[in-house]
Amino acid sequence: MNELDFAIRDAGAAAYAVYGSSVDAEVRYLTRFRTTDPVVYIKKPGERGILVIPQMEHERAVRESTAAVITRADAGYLGYIEAGETRWQATAHMIADLAAGPVLVPSTFPLALARELESFHPVLLDASGTVGRMRAVKTPEELEQIRSVQRATEAAMDLGIALIRGSAPKGGILHRDGRPLTAEIVRTEIHISLLTRGCRGMDTIVSCGPDTALPHSPGAGPLLENEPIVIDIFPQDELTGYHADMTRTVVKGEPSPAIREMYEAVRDAKALSASRVRAGVPGADLYQAVVDLFHDRGYESGTQGFIHSLGHGVGLEVHEEPSLGPRGGALAAGNVITIEPGLYYPGTGGVRLEDMGAVTETGFDRFTQYGEELIV
Amino acid sequence: MNELDFAIRDAGAAAYAVYGSSVDAEVRYLTRFRTTDPVVYIKKPGERGILVIPQMEHERAVRESTAAVITRADAGYLGYIEAGETRWQATAHMIADLAAGPVLVPSTFPLALARELESFHPVLLDASGTVGRMRAVKTPEELEQIRSVQRATEAAMDLGIALIRGSAPKGGILHRDGRPLTAEIVRTEIHISLLTRGCRGMDTIVSCGPDTALPHSPGAGPLLENEPIVIDIFPQDELTGYHADMTRTVVKGEPSPAIREMYEAVRDAKALSASRVRAGVPGADLYQAVVDLFHDRGYESGTQGFIHSLGHGVGLEVHEEPSLGPRGGALAAGNVITIEPGLYYPGTGGVRLEDMGAVTETGFDRFTQYGEELIV
Repeated sequence: MNELDFAIRDAGAAAYAVYGSSVDAEVRYLTRFRTTDPVVYIKKPGERGILVIPQMEHERAVRESTAAVITRADAGYLGYIEAGETRWQATAHMIADLAAGPVLVPSTFPLALARELESFHPVLLDASGTVGRMRAVKTPEELEQIRSVQRATEAAMDLGIALIRGSAPKGGILHRDGRPLTAEIVRTEIHISLLTRGCRGMDTIVSCGPDTALPHSPGAGPLLENEPIVIDIFPQDELTGYHADMTRTVVKGEPSPAIREMYEAVRDAKALSASRVRAGVPGADLYQAVVDLFHDRGYESGTQGFIHSLGHGVGLEVHEEPSLGPRGGALAAGNVITIEPGLYYPGTGGVRLEDMGAVTETGFDRFTQYGEELIV
Repeated sequence: MNELDFAIRDAGAAAYAVYGSSVDAEVRYLTRFRTTDPVVYIKKPGERGILVIPQMEHERAVRESTAAVITRADAGYLGYIEAGETRWQATAHMIADLAAGPVLVPSTFPLALARELESFHPVLLDASGTVGRMRAVKTPEELEQIRSVQRATEAAMDLGIALIRGSAPKGGILHRDGRPLTAEIVRTEIHISLLTRGCRGMDTIVSCGPDTALPHSPGAGPLLENEPIVIDIFPQDELTGYHADMTRTVVKGEPSPAIREMYEAVRDAKALSASRVRAGVPGADLYQAVVDLFHDRGYESGTQGFIHSLGHGVGLEVHEEPSLGPRGGALAAGNVITIEPGLYYPGTGGVRLEDMGAVTETGFDRFTQYGEELIV
C-alpha cells in the first residue's frame, strides 16, 4: 500500500485512472513508458497498476514499463469500437470494466472521458494531487538521475559562457571568427553539448540587454558588449525524462553600476535562501526572506524588481511541486528545488542566478557546482 | 466568423475556452504563444480570442501571441486567490466572468476546472473536435513551415544513412573509426544536424535487426551487417512548433530474401497510396488498398505483418488529424499526411518507408524528396 492506494481507499473508490501520453509527467511517473500517443493506466489498492496499450506497443511496453501490461484488444476496447462506440465511450467502457466501481482521477483528467465514465460509475476528483505530492519526493535513484542531468547542464553552461568569454567586441557587438556572436549560435552550441550527453535542450534562454528584463524571453540576434546576458538551461534526459534547471548572468565588458548592484543583491539572496533550506521550512518563508532582502536594498517585488517566485520543484517536469512562491507550503526531505532569485527593470535589464539541489532534514544538498562571476 | 465561432453559436455557448501549456497543440494553435506553464484562452464569436497570462509574461505575450493579451491580475484571478479560492476555483471564476454565459470546451478540458466552472455556467463539450478539424487544414504559411522542417529532416536522414554507408563491417557489426557504430551515435548525429537547422529531434528511431519488428522501438547498441536498420525522424521546428515525419529502411551488406521481398511490397504500397491520394478520398480506403496489396503478396495485417495504420496528419503534433487507418474519413485539400506502410515479423525484422506531403484537389503534393534504396 502506497500513498496512492490510501488515497483511493479514503475516497471510497475502486481504482485510480489516468489517461494521456508520456508528455504527461504523471503518466510517465506511474508507467515509466514512453509514448507520444495516449494510453490508459489504472491502479487498484494493493495491486500492481495496469498499463493498457495498442497491440503494436505490447513487447516494448512489457520491456520498458513498471506496470503490468495488457493490450486494448484484451481489455475490450476494440470490441466496443467495433460495436459503434466513440473513442471516448470505448475508453470509458474499458476503464469501467477494469475498475468495477467508483474511479478516482487526477484534476487534469479529460472532461469528455469523465462524462462517459460517469454513465458507469461515479468519477471522483483527487483534488489534493496525490501523485504530484508523491512525485515531489524523490527516491535515491531519481536524485542520482537529476544530478546526472545537472552535470550535463553545467558542461553546456560552461561551453556557452566560454563562447562569450572568448568573443571579441566590435562596435558594441560580440564577435567570433569575425562574425557577430548571436543568441542563436550560443543556444545551438549549448544544445549540441547537451545532446552529446544524452540530454535534450528545450527553449534554452540566451537573452541580452533590454530583453533580459523579460524573464522568459528566449533571446535572439547579436549579443552585446557591456550588457547582461542571461543563460537559463533546463534540459531533459532523453532516456529517464528527468530535468535539471540552472541560470547564470554574465557580462562581456563593463556592466553598468545598476547591473552590478542587482547582481550582488541576487547573489546574496540566493546564498541566504540556500542557507535556510531544510525539511519543514515553508517555501513561502524562503520567498518572503528574499522579498525582504531585496526591499532592504531598495528593490521592489510585484510588477517590477522581483517578479516571479523564488523557485520550484524539478523532476519529470521542469516546473513541479513544491512551490517556493508566496503560497508555498512546507518543504520535505527528498524534494528537488531550484533557488532562483532575479531582478528585472525595463531599460536597465535583468539578472537571475539559479541553483538546484535536494532538500534534506538538515539543509540543502546543492547539485549545482558551478561558480558565479558577472564579468567574463 | 470562423469555424470555431460557428461551433460556439451552434452549441448555444457564449464562448470557447481552453486551458494548458503550449505543449498542448490546441493552445499553441489558438494563441501562437510558447509557454511551459498553463494559460487560459477564451474566444467569443466574431471577437478576437483573449490570452490570459501571468504579469511577468505580458510583454512577451503581446509580442508573440496572435490573441489579445490580458494579465491574470486584470482578469480578476489574483483577487480570487487572495480571497481564498483554490487555483481551479479562481481559474473557473475568471473564465466565467470572461464568458458571461455557457462555455464550450474541448474534450481534453481538465475535469477539475470543468466542475468548478459548472457552478457558474453550463459547460458544453465540443465533441466533434472543431479545433482539431481546423488544425488539420493547413494554410499556405503552415504548408511552407512544414516543408521547411522536411528539408531539415532529409538533411539529417542523409547524414544518418551516410554514417551507415561509410561504416566498415567487422564480425557482423558495423564499425566507424575502429569502434562499433551504435544506434546512439547515429541518433546523436541526426539530432545535431537537426539542431543546426533550428529543429529538435525527439525519440528518433534508429533500430536494427530483431528490434525493427517493433515499430516504435527506439533502438540501442551496435548496428549490424546484413540486417534491416529503420530510421524514423519526426522533429519539431523550435520556433514554429511544426513537425515533419519520415522513415527509411536500409541494410549495410546483404539483406535476407525475406527482407528484400518485404521492402518491395512496402515500396509498392507507398507508391500505390500516393497515387490515390486526393481531396475527398477516405483515409480508410487508402488503408484498405494497402491491406489488400499486402494480402496479395502473402502478408497479413493485424497482430503481425501490417500492424499499424497507413498514416496520419502532421502539424503542431506529430500525430494529428486526419487518420489513414481503418476508420479514417475523407481527406481534405490542405491536409498534411504521412504515407507509411510497414511490415513486421518477429525473427525476420521490420521494414517501413514513410513520406509526407499535402493533399490537394487533384493529388498528393509530396514534400519528401528523398530516394529509396535498401542496400547502402
